[in-house]
Amino acid sequence: MKVGIVGATGYGGLELIRFLHNHPAVDRIELFTSSEEGVLFSSKFGHLVTIVDTPLKKIAYDALEKFDVVFTSTPSGVTSELLPPLVGKGPKLIDLSGDFRLKDLASYEAWYGKKAAPANSVQQSVYGLTEWNTERIRQATLIANPGCYPTAVLLSLLPLIKERLIDPSFLVIDAKSGISGAGNKPSQTTHFSEANENLSIYKVNTHQHIPEIEQALSMFAHVDTTITFNTHLIPMTRGILATSYASVMPGITEAQLIACLKTAYEKHPFLRIVTDANSLGTNRVKGSNYCDILVNVDARTNRATIVSVIDNLVKGAAGQAIQNMNVQFDLPQTTGLDVVPFFI
Amino acid sequence: MKVGIVGATGYGGLELIRFLHNHPAVDRIELFTSSEEGVLFSSKFGHLVTIVDTPLKKIAYDALEKFDVVFTSTPSGVTSELLPPLVGKGPKLIDLSGDFRLKDLASYEAWYGKKAAPANSVQQSVYGLTEWNTERIRQATLIANPGCYPTAVLLSLLPLIKERLIDPSFLVIDAKSGISGAGNKPSQTTHFSEANENLSIYKVNTHQHIPEIEQALSMFAHVDTTITFNTHLIPMTRGILATSYASVMPGITEAQLIACLKTAYEKHPFLRIVTDANSLGTNRVKGSNYCDILVNVDARTNRATIVSVIDNLVKGAAGQAIQNMNVQFDLPQTTGLDVVPFFI
Amino acid sequence: MKVGIVGATGYGGLELIRFLHNHPAVDRIELFTSSEEGVLFSSKFGHLVTIVDTPLKKIAYDALEKFDVVFTSTPSGVTSELLPPLVGKGPKLIDLSGDFRLKDLASYEAWYGKKAAPANSVQQSVYGLTEWNTERIRQATLIANPGCYPTAVLLSLLPLIKERLIDPSFLVIDAKSGISGAGNKPSQTTHFSEANENLSIYKVNTHQHIPEIEQALSMFAHVDTTITFNTHLIPMTRGILATSYASVMPGITEAQLIACLKTAYEKHPFLRIVTDANSLGTNRVKGSNYCDILVNVDARTNRATIVSVIDNLVKGAAGQAIQNMNVQFDLPQTTGLDVVPFFI
Amino acid sequence: MKVGIVGATGYGGLELIRFLHNHPAVDRIELFTSSEEGVLFSSKFGHLVTIVDTPLKKIAYDALEKFDVVFTSTPSGVTSELLPPLVGKGPKLIDLSGDFRLKDLASYEAWYGKKAAPANSVQQSVYGLTEWNTERIRQATLIANPGCYPTAVLLSLLPLIKERLIDPSFLVIDAKSGISGAGNKPSQTTHFSEANENLSIYKVNTHQHIPEIEQALSMFAHVDTTITFNTHLIPMTRGILATSYASVMPGITEAQLIACLKTAYEKHPFLRIVTDANSLGTNRVKGSNYCDILVNVDARTNRATIVSVIDNLVKGAAGQAIQNMNVQFDLPQTTGLDVVPFFI
Repeated sequence: MKVGIVGATGYGGLELIRFLHNHPAVDRIELFTSSEEGVLFSSKFGHLVTIVDTPLKKIAYDALEKFDVVFTSTPSGVTSELLPPLVGKGPKLIDLSGDFRLKDLASYEAWYGKKAAPANSVQQSVYGLTEWNTERIRQATLIANPGCYPTAVLLSLLPLIKERLIDPSFLVIDAKSGISGAGNKPSQTTHFSEANENLSIYKVNTHQHIPEIEQALSMFAHVDTTITFNTHLIPMTRGILATSYASVMPGITEAQLIACLKTAYEKHPFLRIVTDANSLGTNRVKGSNYCDILVNVDARTNRATIVSVIDNLVKGAAGQAIQNMNVQFDLPQTTGLDVVPFFI
Repeated sequence: MKVGIVGATGYGGLELIRFLHNHPAVDRIELFTSSEEGVLFSSKFGHLVTIVDTPLKKIAYDALEKFDVVFTSTPSGVTSELLPPLVGKGPKLIDLSGDFRLKDLASYEAWYGKKAAPANSVQQSVYGLTEWNTERIRQATLIANPGCYPTAVLLSLLPLIKERLIDPSFLVIDAKSGISGAGNKPSQTTHFSEANENLSIYKVNTHQHIPEIEQALSMFAHVDTTITFNTHLIPMTRGILATSYASVMPGITEAQLIACLKTAYEKHPFLRIVTDANSLGTNRVKGSNYCDILVNVDARTNRATIVSVIDNLVKGAAGQAIQNMNVQFDLPQTTGLDVVPFFI
Repeated sequence: MKVGIVGATGYGGLELIRFLHNHPAVDRIELFTSSEEGVLFSSKFGHLVTIVDTPLKKIAYDALEKFDVVFTSTPSGVTSELLPPLVGKGPKLIDLSGDFRLKDLASYEAWYGKKAAPANSVQQSVYGLTEWNTERIRQATLIANPGCYPTAVLLSLLPLIKERLIDPSFLVIDAKSGISGAGNKPSQTTHFSEANENLSIYKVNTHQHIPEIEQALSMFAHVDTTITFNTHLIPMTRGILATSYASVMPGITEAQLIACLKTAYEKHPFLRIVTDANSLGTNRVKGSNYCDILVNVDARTNRATIVSVIDNLVKGAAGQAIQNMNVQFDLPQTTGLDVVPFFI
Repeated sequence: MKVGIVGATGYGGLELIRFLHNHPAVDRIELFTSSEEGVLFSSKFGHLVTIVDTPLKKIAYDALEKFDVVFTSTPSGVTSELLPPLVGKGPKLIDLSGDFRLKDLASYEAWYGKKAAPANSVQQSVYGLTEWNTERIRQATLIANPGCYPTAVLLSLLPLIKERLIDPSFLVIDAKSGISGAGNKPSQTTHFSEANENLSIYKVNTHQHIPEIEQALSMFAHVDTTITFNTHLIPMTRGILATSYASVMPGITEAQLIACLKTAYEKHPFLRIVTDANSLGTNRVKGSNYCDILVNVDARTNRATIVSVIDNLVKGAAGQAIQNMNVQFDLPQTTGLDVVPFFI
């Protein structure tokens, strides 16, 4: 397979390279950029010296059409214009940006503050939450790879909500992310001396992943609800931990919640149900495509606490994108992704 | 004033020393320990060389009785035995442990798993949430200094709940703390290589600060409720950020919530109401006794997000203890505590 | 005293504010900027809300002339033009930039790549290494506050070189700094995700502090030598540790080196000679004006290892600047600087 | 191949597992322990759930003899007793501890403060600095895998010293390591709150890697010298950066030093010569077996600064051990180790 990556210099692009380098079905990777044509990739990224000593290429449709897969890992508002002409021209398209995730174009424009992609492209696109949309992904030409937060949240909540074990009417999701989620562009907020040893909340009640989560709850669990969702910046590089709170439906036990999750994911190699909180942490999934989930019911309140952890750059971005590519090409989902988490 | 510190080698004790060193009304500090009698304090703590070159002393009642104030900063289960004989013997007693916080002895024993202090001592003790209990603190002989999490949570929620602006019946509090909250004793969980670059949840729905928060909501806001409260370990040393979620009462606006907080704290120098989330972060209060609070109402859900930040070792421990001492001795509350936060 | 700070928004400026806020002889502080006139300072820096709620003022000579002291904490190349007209006009001038440190103008221009300040201003300026230049500082109108690295290096090496106990002819200085030394301007190098968990060397053999150290060795120890000096970026915010290596002069013992340092600094409250390496670390001086020094002689090689630690923003910048102000105004050197280091 | 790991619960052991899991020639891994027989490995290490769900086994010679390779990753003083009876009994033995590194038994006992291994075992053992001892490693039964610091130092210095391009008579090596180098056992020094935001020096002039480096300089470059070597603790988890200083031999240029290194390593896939300091950093080799080297000559002093970076747990431990295994079994050296460094 020949693979093109547009937006290779971002962290999503770098993670795609990290995994595709060891993917047995990929024999060629080319990197595209909007602004640094001809620059030797390894001159920008020292860790890739002797590994990716190829120049960045200019984005051009005739070049992109010749790949088997094109990954786009660009800021929002780029692929809404770039990808529509490529749909159906040959390559599988896997977009890591948010441009094709929201089916409601007005919602996209309200939450992203940008012009939406053309309606027909958005309708053609398939939401790439691998474990929940496998068959449609297999057939898809254009995949909207899920956001990092929605991946962590949905994988943990969907089974419980779909089976009506928890009450979706008062759902509070408190999410926390490492700073790599903010991308590679320097800013005051991500300046080491100000981000280090600091804990903050951002985009209070206005994060663009809210409508994405609500849409997926409707799509996969057939529940329309309005969630409370907030995001915090954690002084570490990688990792998302999402803590969700909801009332347990009458008569439902913690054991049933755990059983529901185990059943839902028994055939899914990257999903692990954890029963001991001491075994759960972002470093237990760091660098890998795993999503670990813990559920606990507080007998005092009959409310459930549901916790999930992922590596935001892997299962929350590049890893899930490659998992989707594997599905599209009828490869085992773990191909090229079967690595041991870092831990330390 | 002569001040004794029992448990000086813990982080709470070290912070007491840091502030009392510059407290204009304190002219003598002596340090007590259960196990390292005679050890030169600065030989254990290099940062105190030339500053605190005195030996640790053995805990003895006749010595402790001679102080104007005795701070105890010990693990739970120590002062329940140590302090009762000292009550009324002269010194003001300010206990930073949890041993005198819960009026319900059975609750203490259930949540702490230890024998409670004698009933009469517990009844005599005054809960030292300075801004909410000033008059009783002024008269108190034995102060139960609040826990770090309860301080952050209560200061932000009490005005809103007392004025019935938010609904206390479904209160979700998602708290996050730096690792110094776990104390100075090494463990696998706090081992640098495993705590660094990791984000985890601990004591899921079982943290001993739950009954303390519920008791204070009842005591100061006259509301009996059962809260959902969880705690997360953040890879940084200092700081607590608590994010609380509740429905806003019908007809109440965000502006009213903000006004309520501003009114409640207008005469309290350490409480700051923040209206821009970009100005809120644990590093904005680091090293200081400030508590910063932000409130936001999500118009989609009519739920409030209430965020507060403190330095867990200062406002959440040593700083509030000294603030209470100031109250007891009719000093301005800011005496010895008027420092600029670190930020970086 | 009335104090003006030019360049208040940088980290040096923020530290000046942190200490001057508690300085008993300072009753007014005004903040100046080149570009953000009228902006409320606390709107930029949330930690200063209720503490410094004053607007930034435009830099103007008539305003600056009325202060007792003007601190300038600006990038190199600014005060070389700004300060000369102010010399002798009233205020004591304390420049935290490098513009007046090098007496050799050609050397300044070679190492800084900028135009040097006028020769007469440079000659008038006094190098503000407090412990080594106290009398001249007392009389000075314009003080060139030392660089962060030179402060750490010179305080540890000067006594030993001046007394000819170590051989200055082959002096290797390996210095390490926290990232706040790079200032507050975001860049790829200081972007959290790329600076965190990374250790690197920078400005290899070309750091502009090299001629400053060599000049001071000549000035205070009367030794002309060419040093080897390198700097490393450490993934933490504050702190410098400098490790220096030199041969011990024949017949000289470790005990003599220690004694030399102790004698040199016995009357200097901020200098501490440490004899146990376990007591030495940047966190032992964090947030304070202390400089801790350790010396060890390796009997195998007869070479000395000399280690010093400072907080780069305090003793390496704002703290030493205030110490110099204290000297100029005949205040005890510790005035406003007598704080306990943070440790944790 | 069947592989046994003794000391699997340490960080070296965990890294062996991380890489061997993806090693194409390894089909079975068993884990041995001195004290936790029967414990499910993944119950101790959450990141290995579903990956290594096997129990720890008791160390027993009859079991160990049946493996093709036995890695031992234990504290010093363990394998000196454990391994000698296994030599020649079948498995290739690769010892990651220091017990077989020093040929001079008295030196081992002096620097390690422990009883040395039997003389004949030590003599039989082969020092496993892969790039410099490949042929002897290929034949070896017992490999003494190099220390983390010696690996970083020797790979960068050996070519230059062997070719007599730098002067070994005054060699200063200033090394810095992340905290994982201290192992997995909690201590005050590695307690997060005290290690975070701290920079310190340890084992001043007494690190046990000193004689190992000197022995290898003699063994591979035929130079007997006494080095100055110090080690610093950096607040990050992984990575070593070693900065070495030496005079350049008369008439030798920087270009010759660079050429020497490039020639020495042109056929060695894990060695990369870096010419831009901005491309060098521990995060450029993080998680990988690469060693990156930079050399710079200061024209002012005619001294060379030689910098090398490795991941202490990979090239400095488990990675090099597997590289040695590959050599022993005539596999390409990169087998199972061909991964892209993490960078972020």
